[in-house]
Amino acid sequence: MPRVSQDQLAARRHEILAGARACFARHGYEGATVRRLEEETGLSRGAIFHHFRDKDSLFLAVAADDAAEMAATVARNGLVQVMRDLLANPDVAGWLGTQLEVGRRLRTDPEFAEQWSERSGAIAAATRERLERQRDAGVLRDDVPVATLQRFLELAYDGLVKHLAMGRPTDDLGPVLDLVEAAVRKP
Amino acid sequence: MPRVSQDQLAARRHEILAGARACFARHGYEGATVRRLEEETGLSRGAIFHHFRDKDSLFLAVAADDAAEMAATVARNGLVQVMRDLLANPDVAGWLGTQLEVGRRLRTDPEFAEQWSERSGAIAAATRERLERQRDAGVLRDDVPVATLQRFLELAYDGLVKHLAMGRPTDDLGPVLDLVEAAVRKP
Repeated sequence: MPRVSQDQLAARRHEILAGARACFARHGYEGATVRRLEEETGLSRGAIFHHFRDKDSLFLAVAADDAAEMAATVARNGLVQVMRDLLANPDVAGWLGTQLEVGRRLRTDPEFAEQWSERSGAIAAATRERLERQRDAGVLRDDVPVATLQRFLELAYDGLVKHLAMGRPTDDLGPVLDLVEAAVRKP
Repeated sequence: MPRVSQDQLAARRHEILAGARACFARHGYEGATVRRLEEETGLSRGAIFHHFRDKDSLFLAVAADDAAEMAATVARNGLVQVMRDLLANPDVAGWLGTQLEVGRRLRTDPEFAEQWSERSGAIAAATRERLERQRDAGVLRDDVPVATLQRFLELAYDGLVKHLAMGRPTDDLGPVLDLVEAAVRKP
């Protein structure tokens, strides 16, 4: 057997995740069958499931990749910037919608919920740290606990995800995000 | 054939909708099979589909009933009160989750989306009218257009729906709704 370098393994893994993301976005969680995952990645099921145990693991790995990128943007520019980026890129609707489709699993399958919450934990931590830095810099309002401001921003983010996933128009949401941002800052 | 009064018809219709709502909440849109709809309503498929053309019509009728009740609450007490009511009643999560599950249909099936938007149109109109009355009464901030305040409240509502549908904890959301409410009011 040829030796496969770590770089090659990482590249293959990345390739599978990109194809899986497109497949979940297009067909939804239930609709992303093994056959469709093969088509979208251009790889056999053997190759795919050599890297990921099952469809759940694949889905959670795509979500974890997404979360890492999102946490990095939050740390750098804040959760409102993540929202502005989503607004500028409405073809993410398919993938956001697929995330909503697993809500029932999250309420009824504790193991799945546990793995999912590791994903959202990284984003929550980045949001919290960024808000604390902003408060130290005197930018944030100081009459409301940081934890409440964090939940408020997360609520707005969740609302935007639902809005986009339901295919609603986005052209008038820019000023709404301005209002969200202003609500956590010093007047 | 016995003559059936309008009252009897309305009562039967109401009975079907209540059972269907419970069935959609418990099993989701796809999971609400005809057999399960029969079990949950205690009626035969013949009796159910005498009143509603198909599962889509039944789902949209449940949603329309919900929307009428929600629009009435909005007109009386505003969209923030609808959010506070949701927060006090977290066992609505199943039904909210089922509403999210149709996101893909809304993006890809124009006829379904059209029927759904009639439903949300009534709530949007009630929200708008209530905000205009509040502005006339001098309660609202006047540096931001009413349309933006409306979208802002709808974004928060959507966020709460997603939050509840994903089974996340709700105990710290009361102060977040206070912040949402304060953001549309005069300081």
